[in-house]
Amino acid sequence: MKLKVYLSGEIHSDWRTQIIEGCKRQELNITFSSAVTEHDASDAAGDGLGEESTSFWRDHKSAKVNAIRIKHAIESCDLAIIRFGEKYKQWNAAFDAGYCAALGKPYITLHDESLVHALKEVDGSAQAWAQNPEQIVNILKYLTTQA
Amino acid sequence: MKLKVYLSGEIHSDWRTQIIEGCKRQELNITFSSAVTEHDASDAAGDGLGEESTSFWRDHKSAKVNAIRIKHAIESCDLAIIRFGEKYKQWNAAFDAGYCAALGKPYITLHDESLVHALKEVDGSAQAWAQNPEQIVNILKYLTTQA
Amino acid sequence: MKLKVYLSGEIHSDWRTQIIEGCKRQELNITFSSAVTEHDASDAAGDGLGEESTSFWRDHKSAKVNAIRIKHAIESCDLAIIRFGEKYKQWNAAFDAGYCAALGKPYITLHDESLVHALKEVDGSAQAWAQNPEQIVNILKYLTTQA
Amino acid sequence: MKLKVYLSGEIHSDWRTQIIEGCKRQELNITFSSAVTEHDASDAAGDGLGEESTSFWRDHKSAKVNAIRIKHAIESCDLAIIRFGEKYKQWNAAFDAGYCAALGKPYITLHDESLVHALKEVDGSAQAWAQNPEQIVNILKYLTTQA
Amino acid sequence: MKLKVYLSGEIHSDWRTQIIEGCKRQELNITFSSAVTEHDASDAAGDGLGEESTSFWRDHKSAKVNAIRIKHAIESCDLAIIRFGEKYKQWNAAFDAGYCAALGKPYITLHDESLVHALKEVDGSAQAWAQNPEQIVNILKYLTTQA
Amino acid sequence: MKLKVYLSGEIHSDWRTQIIEGCKRQELNITFSSAVTEHDASDAAGDGLGEESTSFWRDHKSAKVNAIRIKHAIESCDLAIIRFGEKYKQWNAAFDAGYCAALGKPYITLHDESLVHALKEVDGSAQAWAQNPEQIVNILKYLTTQA
Amino acid sequence: MKLKVYLSGEIHSDWRTQIIEGCKRQELNITFSSAVTEHDASDAAGDGLGEESTSFWRDHKSAKVNAIRIKHAIESCDLAIIRFGEKYKQWNAAFDAGYCAALGKPYITLHDESLVHALKEVDGSAQAWAQNPEQIVNILKYLTTQA
Amino acid sequence: MKLKVYLSGEIHSDWRTQIIEGCKRQELNITFSSAVTEHDASDAAGDGLGEESTSFWRDHKSAKVNAIRIKHAIESCDLAIIRFGEKYKQWNAAFDAGYCAALGKPYITLHDESLVHALKEVDGSAQAWAQNPEQIVNILKYLTTQA
Repeated sequence: MKLKVYLSGEIHSDWRTQIIEGCKRQELNITFSSAVTEHDASDAAGDGLGEESTSFWRDHKSAKVNAIRIKHAIESCDLAIIRFGEKYKQWNAAFDAGYCAALGKPYITLHDESLVHALKEVDGSAQAWAQNPEQIVNILKYLTTQA
Repeated sequence: MKLKVYLSGEIHSDWRTQIIEGCKRQELNITFSSAVTEHDASDAAGDGLGEESTSFWRDHKSAKVNAIRIKHAIESCDLAIIRFGEKYKQWNAAFDAGYCAALGKPYITLHDESLVHALKEVDGSAQAWAQNPEQIVNILKYLTTQA
Repeated sequence: MKLKVYLSGEIHSDWRTQIIEGCKRQELNITFSSAVTEHDASDAAGDGLGEESTSFWRDHKSAKVNAIRIKHAIESCDLAIIRFGEKYKQWNAAFDAGYCAALGKPYITLHDESLVHALKEVDGSAQAWAQNPEQIVNILKYLTTQA
Repeated sequence: MKLKVYLSGEIHSDWRTQIIEGCKRQELNITFSSAVTEHDASDAAGDGLGEESTSFWRDHKSAKVNAIRIKHAIESCDLAIIRFGEKYKQWNAAFDAGYCAALGKPYITLHDESLVHALKEVDGSAQAWAQNPEQIVNILKYLTTQA
Repeated sequence: MKLKVYLSGEIHSDWRTQIIEGCKRQELNITFSSAVTEHDASDAAGDGLGEESTSFWRDHKSAKVNAIRIKHAIESCDLAIIRFGEKYKQWNAAFDAGYCAALGKPYITLHDESLVHALKEVDGSAQAWAQNPEQIVNILKYLTTQA
Repeated sequence: MKLKVYLSGEIHSDWRTQIIEGCKRQELNITFSSAVTEHDASDAAGDGLGEESTSFWRDHKSAKVNAIRIKHAIESCDLAIIRFGEKYKQWNAAFDAGYCAALGKPYITLHDESLVHALKEVDGSAQAWAQNPEQIVNILKYLTTQA
Repeated sequence: MKLKVYLSGEIHSDWRTQIIEGCKRQELNITFSSAVTEHDASDAAGDGLGEESTSFWRDHKSAKVNAIRIKHAIESCDLAIIRFGEKYKQWNAAFDAGYCAALGKPYITLHDESLVHALKEVDGSAQAWAQNPEQIVNILKYLTTQA
Repeated sequence: MKLKVYLSGEIHSDWRTQIIEGCKRQELNITFSSAVTEHDASDAAGDGLGEESTSFWRDHKSAKVNAIRIKHAIESCDLAIIRFGEKYKQWNAAFDAGYCAALGKPYITLHDESLVHALKEVDGSAQAWAQNPEQIVNILKYLTTQA
């Protein structure tokens, strides 16, 4: 079986690379998508449309340009992996999880045990909770290896 | 016009009461819904189904019982107000926002200016950003007063 | 049969009143909805959320507040009447027509013969084209009088 | 990332070519669709089905034949670019925008600053407002360059 | 249980009355809807919108006005009864059946045994085939009597 | 909060009555629906439409008449309770659970611990697993008591 | 533009071949689908599943096997051509038209002028009415020739 | 015609192989999907995510991992074959049938005559009932052989 997997959340650690490389090594039939993960480029996504005098509207314009890519990625994926790190609020990751839930797109959360209580609603609608990228790779292998 | 409004997010300040009372004083044609907002009762929502030995499964069971009410409230509302406070992660509020966005339910965020950058994706899909409950009451009045 | 009718478009003539009064006189079982039709209030719908330094963002905020009401009205109507006058661009009326078409909500256009060519795509997806409010009242009477 | 982009609106300037050529030069992974943009052919789309004695029915037949292509293009696109020029009513462009909005298809408007107030509802549901084709090309490059 | 039942098809016999009266006598909790069943009024439904020189366009305008009522009735019903008589083509009844099937609205056909082969596709998507109105009343009684 | 609850499954014990009576005693704002639960009447639901010579077609006709009521009940409920007893195959209960899952209707299973492994897929998509009717009543009380 | 076209209706004349050959000659980018059009094979579609003693159930089984193919063809097409001949009831063609209408699939009818009044509801929801296969080929050419 | 077929149910006999091999021999244009059918691997699907102390949660985790694959297979199939054997409860097969029914995915059941009464609701929503794999192969050949 072939799967399209959307990777959402934390951009300050290399969890995406670990999953993508792990799947490559196993030669799994999986394609990955993400939001633009270069932090500065993402914050500046709307800058080409004209300067803004307040940070609210600068952020707003960039967020809406980025949403074109994110929405497309979520709606065309078969499964999402949603990563929460220790730092930052990462409300966009929780937003993506809710978006998946409402569309009936299955998702797996990836986070440390310390976040269990804070993420209980997000985990409650997830298909699984993993604590490290290797577990994700193993699940992806299990899901796709048989024809 | 009559509206059904779902109030999501922070449960440690009285913003819900301010909005509900404000609308009552103006005699607006609005009904409100919320998750169960009593903190301890909410955390214990699944306890009656049997004890658990790990906090993950205790949280999980409660979150899924609570989701019955939340899902019903979101799917039957015409508009959601989603509140983010200074404290706590409030991933459930961002999750609700994403859920609304995917269903095409309009929502208004309610938060301080200090959270603008962290909430840019959540605000990017919102119909409006308000900074205090009075602004919410005024918008609700505007939306519902004309026949 | 009972119908919920959404009235969209031109706010500078009394076509809404003519239709509503005409249906009242015939005691038809119809309820009507509209955007907020007071021009200044509508343009200022978002002003309470804070001042803006550019007209684009002022308009933007008001348009998005108004969209909460309009979207709700369209999605809960059984039929829309969409009026185009001689003056102004009235792109919002054509936008509402496209919104109805995509949702499968039937709509009737109301405009003079002079606009036929310019409105051919909008009329092409309509259930009918009427030239005056009396024709609309007669159709509504026909549609609702038999049990 | 690969995108399917639908180009809607004005047919009297070369904005379509500018965007398509601009994307080709950058070797972006994008396919484009449009309504039939040859004006006379479009107006005559239904003529082969028999002559009409009124311009309303001639227009009607052509509009409905054209709608087969437009509807297919919108429903299979990932993003629409909707262009409003200074001249003409262009209600079909606003109709397409409303159609996109109701389907949850993201769209970007392309128009001069002079049209801001008249297009506030159309812009209010858009993901972005651009003022020239180069800005569109840059956004498309941003959205599709990272894997 | 309460049901909304749409009655589609033949208008030249009194099958509608038999069903409605039969349900009334049993005091069943059912509301009924239909297209406008007065033949001449139905054919003239669009006449008030202006005279036509061809029968195609006269029929077209009336059919589209009638479709507003029919579509509303089908989309808000819980069950449709679709009647085929011996005479006439009754393509509108088969059209309604297909419309119900695509929406997942259950329907029961009502016709003589002589039409079995010609109606095999229509019956194939039906929940039941009845041969007389009494059978319909009995099924409606069965479906609604228990709480 | 008001809820519409569909009760599916086993008809040979009094679990429905226990839940309904328990909710009545607590004066909960809940309405209940079920398939026709009288066994013989249910098996004979299609008999009025003519005799059959094979048990397959007799069962088939009755099942399809019953499906009208069941489908309506599921599609209009806010929550389903799905009961599996020790005896019988009860494939219809599992079928209802799958139907709920695909529609996004939340459901709670009600069964003994001995059935845990056999029901793992059905429980996997459920919001909760209860072992007795009192637990169901308590959850319904929790979900509906706060405004 | 590429189109997937479903051909529905009459199987006793060569209209399908005329359209398919006409499109081939013009090298149009179109793929076609149909129900199984061999009459005897179609009537016997369910025979392999066991003999039946009544023609109703034999027809029923075959109709439901055929519906698998027809439903798949309609749901994956971009446009349907629906043909009504002079002979036979052809309720399945009208059923397909209703199915298309409910799904929002555009369709074109193909029939003689003599059937205009009987087909007014079917034509009322169509995008066009053609009287011969050449007109269909010309429309398909128009719709697909421009990129 | 090409078909994607999902094979659901019993994993203790070789019915899947018989169907797949039978279709290969006939060179039919069909692709097949299934849940992971290796019993032990399936029960252990969630084990890599951490040990559980109760069988309920172990089963639960595995069922939800498996559901990712099953849901994807059902939602992307054109037809499901659902097999019930003599042994075991096979509630997951009935669950899949209900899931298909709610999504409007056609399915064919495959079971012995002895199960007819117990499966009447599942058969009632099926397109056909087959008693052996050869019948399935013949239907698949019939459905796909004509272009």
